[in-house]
Amino acid sequence: MMKKILCYVLILVSGPLLAQQMDVTRFVNPFIGTARMGHTYPGATVPFGMVQLSPDTDTLPYAVNGKYNKEVYRYCAGYQYDDPTIVGFSHTHFSGTGHSDLGDILLMPTQGKLQLNPGTADAPQSGYRSAYKHENENASPNYYSVQLDDHQILAELTTSERVGMHRYTFREAGPAHLILDLIHGIYPYENKSVWTFLRLENDSLLTGYRQTNGWARTRTQYFAIAFSKPVKNYGYQNFAPKEVYQGFWRKFDQYHNFPEMAGAQIRAWFDFDVVAGEQLQFKVALSPVSTAGAIANLKAEVPHWNFDQVKEAGKQRWQQELGKIQVDMLTDADKTNFYTALYHAYLAPTLYQDVDGSYKGIDQNSHRADGFSHYTTFSLWDTYRALHPWFNLMQPKRNADMIQSMLAHYNQSVHGMLPVWSHHANENWCMIGYHSVSVIADAAIKGVTGFDQQAALNACVETARQRYYDGLGYYIDLGYVPEDKNGSSVSKTLEYAYDDWCIAQLAKKLGDEAIYSEFSTRANNYRNVWDASTGYMRPRLNNGNFRAEFDVLSTHGQGFIEGNAWNYSLYVPHHPDSLIQMMGGKKAFVRHLDSLFSMPLPDHHFAGTEDISRDGIIGNYVHGNEPSHHVAYLYPYADAAHRTQFLVRQILDSMYKPLPGGLGGNDDCGQMSAWYLFSSLGFYPVAPGSAFYVLGSPLVKSANLELPNGKTLRIVAKNQSRKNCYVKSVQLNGRMLNAFEISHDQLFAGSLLEFEMTHQPNIKSIDR
Amino acid sequence: MMKKILCYVLILVSGPLLAQQMDVTRFVNPFIGTARMGHTYPGATVPFGMVQLSPDTDTLPYAVNGKYNKEVYRYCAGYQYDDPTIVGFSHTHFSGTGHSDLGDILLMPTQGKLQLNPGTADAPQSGYRSAYKHENENASPNYYSVQLDDHQILAELTTSERVGMHRYTFREAGPAHLILDLIHGIYPYENKSVWTFLRLENDSLLTGYRQTNGWARTRTQYFAIAFSKPVKNYGYQNFAPKEVYQGFWRKFDQYHNFPEMAGAQIRAWFDFDVVAGEQLQFKVALSPVSTAGAIANLKAEVPHWNFDQVKEAGKQRWQQELGKIQVDMLTDADKTNFYTALYHAYLAPTLYQDVDGSYKGIDQNSHRADGFSHYTTFSLWDTYRALHPWFNLMQPKRNADMIQSMLAHYNQSVHGMLPVWSHHANENWCMIGYHSVSVIADAAIKGVTGFDQQAALNACVETARQRYYDGLGYYIDLGYVPEDKNGSSVSKTLEYAYDDWCIAQLAKKLGDEAIYSEFSTRANNYRNVWDASTGYMRPRLNNGNFRAEFDVLSTHGQGFIEGNAWNYSLYVPHHPDSLIQMMGGKKAFVRHLDSLFSMPLPDHHFAGTEDISRDGIIGNYVHGNEPSHHVAYLYPYADAAHRTQFLVRQILDSMYKPLPGGLGGNDDCGQMSAWYLFSSLGFYPVAPGSAFYVLGSPLVKSANLELPNGKTLRIVAKNQSRKNCYVKSVQLNGRMLNAFEISHDQLFAGSLLEFEMTHQPNIKSIDR
Repeated sequence: MMKKILCYVLILVSGPLLAQQMDVTRFVNPFIGTARMGHTYPGATVPFGMVQLSPDTDTLPYAVNGKYNKEVYRYCAGYQYDDPTIVGFSHTHFSGTGHSDLGDILLMPTQGKLQLNPGTADAPQSGYRSAYKHENENASPNYYSVQLDDHQILAELTTSERVGMHRYTFREAGPAHLILDLIHGIYPYENKSVWTFLRLENDSLLTGYRQTNGWARTRTQYFAIAFSKPVKNYGYQNFAPKEVYQGFWRKFDQYHNFPEMAGAQIRAWFDFDVVAGEQLQFKVALSPVSTAGAIANLKAEVPHWNFDQVKEAGKQRWQQELGKIQVDMLTDADKTNFYTALYHAYLAPTLYQDVDGSYKGIDQNSHRADGFSHYTTFSLWDTYRALHPWFNLMQPKRNADMIQSMLAHYNQSVHGMLPVWSHHANENWCMIGYHSVSVIADAAIKGVTGFDQQAALNACVETARQRYYDGLGYYIDLGYVPEDKNGSSVSKTLEYAYDDWCIAQLAKKLGDEAIYSEFSTRANNYRNVWDASTGYMRPRLNNGNFRAEFDVLSTHGQGFIEGNAWNYSLYVPHHPDSLIQMMGGKKAFVRHLDSLFSMPLPDHHFAGTEDISRDGIIGNYVHGNEPSHHVAYLYPYADAAHRTQFLVRQILDSMYKPLPGGLGGNDDCGQMSAWYLFSSLGFYPVAPGSAFYVLGSPLVKSANLELPNGKTLRIVAKNQSRKNCYVKSVQLNGRMLNAFEISHDQLFAGSLLEFEMTHQPNIKSIDR
Repeated sequence: MMKKILCYVLILVSGPLLAQQMDVTRFVNPFIGTARMGHTYPGATVPFGMVQLSPDTDTLPYAVNGKYNKEVYRYCAGYQYDDPTIVGFSHTHFSGTGHSDLGDILLMPTQGKLQLNPGTADAPQSGYRSAYKHENENASPNYYSVQLDDHQILAELTTSERVGMHRYTFREAGPAHLILDLIHGIYPYENKSVWTFLRLENDSLLTGYRQTNGWARTRTQYFAIAFSKPVKNYGYQNFAPKEVYQGFWRKFDQYHNFPEMAGAQIRAWFDFDVVAGEQLQFKVALSPVSTAGAIANLKAEVPHWNFDQVKEAGKQRWQQELGKIQVDMLTDADKTNFYTALYHAYLAPTLYQDVDGSYKGIDQNSHRADGFSHYTTFSLWDTYRALHPWFNLMQPKRNADMIQSMLAHYNQSVHGMLPVWSHHANENWCMIGYHSVSVIADAAIKGVTGFDQQAALNACVETARQRYYDGLGYYIDLGYVPEDKNGSSVSKTLEYAYDDWCIAQLAKKLGDEAIYSEFSTRANNYRNVWDASTGYMRPRLNNGNFRAEFDVLSTHGQGFIEGNAWNYSLYVPHHPDSLIQMMGGKKAFVRHLDSLFSMPLPDHHFAGTEDISRDGIIGNYVHGNEPSHHVAYLYPYADAAHRTQFLVRQILDSMYKPLPGGLGGNDDCGQMSAWYLFSSLGFYPVAPGSAFYVLGSPLVKSANLELPNGKTLRIVAKNQSRKNCYVKSVQLNGRMLNAFEISHDQLFAGSLLEFEMTHQPNIKSIDR
């Protein structure tokens, strides 16, 4: 039903697109990943847009009786497909993260009794929320709509980069309310709302900001909301446990029709009279710096009330970005997977600046981006692996701007550090490593211009020398992070070593011998946590000994994070040959890898993994978490490329399904999707910072990639089928490729890459 | 002892001044008003400076068990002369207000055990505070020093416009602490500190901001603190009842030597090692908009570490402003009163912008003042009476800038209103009326240029038409505020009527007949609360009737505020002749006035007055509150100028004494002091908005006023003595003045105004 309506709509509006190129937006299904652990959101947004306008189906307390509430984890993106009610529509969402924040400025249209509490999912009529049915719900790039059953309102959402637009069609005449809930948020807890300030500038323009203390410790979201119809009556209630100091404001009835409102925890309401069938529209502009900025953004981007125009413009932006790749695949379901992955890959990082370039920096001051677009939401522990390398292929200009944004962060950082996991003018310090350096090195090595590479190297080096950061001082002194001083020590040691190798590559490119030498040495530090006696990477103590207790299948408290020793021991992406040697040579290594994909993982060990569904693993291989994303591509280094080919196709088919619950784990701001994109095209960046990709097994039948340099990369998989998952031979521009790696330059030159597919594994067909 | 040290210091540094003009700063005693109800502060500041760096002797909770704590009232300026301990030195203070806020960024140097709680006055050793003795305390313009007995530290303070400078001399060697208390504030209460953010930018520069919810509902004070010596160790503690959300910050030891700190209620500490006799210095720059602004202010104003240079520069600024008036008086005590009044008159409004003109507006956005200096702290209910008129005489450029600041407030106001009582980007709505219009009209009528008078008129009119403001809708509809709808109704009606007359005067000047007519009519509304049956202004109800219960001596709940019916019934400054007629003609009026000054005020009625000491009244005349400030000058309108002459001299001598407890009431941002200035020179602006002053009885023997137009106004009182308080005759430029009024132009032309004084009242000597 959903798909039918979707197609109908697209046929109506996509005429002009079809004349030029295939409308690929119809293959995007924003519901993919919205059930279970995908943590995607189905709402409206434009590529990398500042506004992510999406329904929130619930909001649970972050903690209950002071203890973390595991149930809140379902709501990282605000929406869970299985939920029966919608609380409202908020304007900021992460896509696919495994921890959360945002959910700002929730609007909800209602009719009937004014209710300022959201109510509960089992009794939606007890609050302003509403029941809904999926059959009355639609989502496509830059458009979302749903019938709100409790209020008989059709809600439609669309966006421009900085403006979210709501169109509410009221079936019944009568008094209507717009609820503006400024307490609502994702990962809410009692003190999350720090302060809120609202002004009704005139009868159809509201401005304000909300300041929160959450994953972003000190965050303020400014906004301006334009009403299509003058408000009749309005007011607010402050739900803070302690009332704010009132002083002489008591001389007013502040809570009714008084245009200046403030407090820690506010819900406001705005009343309108509507006739049956009437549409009310609301435009919500965001700004990182001020309400004046929000108003300017509103005027610049959506100076009119034509909802369909905004919707169509955003859809065309999507077509422009997604249409650069035209694929032919075995099934339409594959195409849906492909274009939805591409869609999810272009949701973050998100724009974080006003139309005049103003943005709030990590120092909490206002800055202006000079000569670049400023981005935020850097889930770098995830995205350095494949998403940013993907940008180097298809979005190098944006990636250069993202690097400039990261360098601005570094320049403003009191720690002298590049971002670790940053969003909305805050460093949230999530996960481990300093993978900004990987993003920078990979871009530089692949010839991306548009940022100062020497300044970037300096930033990388200063970051990697920040002794008080997460065991780094120990790492610098001892060559590893000691588990008794700093937990998850093996994961940190391994990732620092890889990051250091990235810095060395950048230094080498820029001719800085001293830095190259220093960080090449540090890049070998993975050896310091290698325990030859067990054949695994293993936590070591400050005294130099390995920790006695050791369980290769457990994760937490074992020296690892989001991956056990079994998986993490394979994390030497920059020195695979050395890893193979440590592990006993190629044959032993292949056996070892094979056992990873085939061994059963006991339930109690699965419980220790995170962010994934039970079917997000293959044996003990955990695709839902990132540390293993390169693992299937290690076989060729041990002369077993056919195993890569088989497994990549298995992962593509089993971990990505065109269903709400189709993702095997968190999409993690597009990293899971970027893995799909590379892998389905037949190559993968095992070690970003290297100019080489490892060849796998394409899932496409063919693909044309319009590269940013104006050239076209054409990929063809002859004899492609589900069964023919093995690669018989590879030709580049008609010449046989006798290597399992291919360079970025080879692809970027505008080439024809032809795979000949077969159902028989070509054992040792491709040697090094 | 105090004065001796003061003179010694001044002799040392004031050489260059004496060559040009008399050093008048030595007559300023900043301790005047610091005991009892004066609510002045003794600390360092420059004229109208953004920084008011002053010791706070205590901080009491604003409320105890949810009830207002009357004791907190003593601490409106943070300092009470009788207190035995000093908590520390904070950077923002109101001078003389009767409600309060501020007290931002308290610094306190300590030695010995690190203590992060302030301790109590009776046991200062239980916290970081210290005992002190007045004999070890000094204050003069832009300089304050005190010996902190518990820590054996000499603390010295001075300022530039935007920077406070601290010099701490440690008698003993050892570890020293600098306490930075960001919970501390004036009128503190549990939730006042909303959020605080700190960054140690390097080992000798700290930046940050503190956000509060107090009298200013949504206020943020940004700052930068430079240390003269690198900090050795530092840290902080969060005293918020609920800890902030921590997230991944837990991976650090945030509380020790970690350069980024945040939370709702923070006290930080910074450790230094000192040798005996060592001096540590700290420069604290403020900004209304950002820490970047604070750093820029610091660099622009105090790029060096020369404390004495800052101190001397500020003192010279004071000499420059105060020295424009050279007075000869009967005693040095009179001179101290005069120059301290002049000093107190130049403390507020205060500068509120960065060196680049940036300031935070009432809309909470950042703005830039274009072509004017932006001011804040408009205690307008007080200061429209004499302080702003005084500025029109001696500081018209600043007053024009203040009006531009008020117009900026209006332009940014969501209420479309000029300020009522505003400070630090907030309207606090204190007191009644819309007296901005008086300030504007008075300036325009007296020929002050430098602001757009037509735009100002529009702002006045829109303000006066804001129906939801404090009974104004009723006033517009009924011609009075009905007491059963809005309290203090008579005071409001009377003040609105006067304000409306001001608008009419401005409209007349600009040739706007319609507005002149509308507001001239409204200016008569005082008649609507006149109860001829009792001979008093009396609260009226919505149904038109006077309220039955009526007590002419009580204040609160009686339809009045800060003044009873007896006093407020005389509040028709714009139509004194009409008032006299209503009150039964001149003779009856004089009898009535006389009884005011002679009647005994029973204790239970005195208890109902506010802001004043028992000796702040004469009979039932309450000089400590403002509504009567014009009253002594009403006699000449009833042909009894000699009574004005006698009473003005009585008030000057009894209400202003050169002692800490010398002020009869709150100085109210300089209004009490401005009354002294005008009155001691022999004239007073009874109805600001009129070009005329009423003559009184000068206290000076002579005075030379260097007017801003380059001319000199010379005032001479022949045969001046304490006994000769009556005026025999007045000559202007050698010609007899046969009127009791004198125009602003007559004075401003640069005139010689000669009073001949006598001990005999010259009954009916001066007729109209």
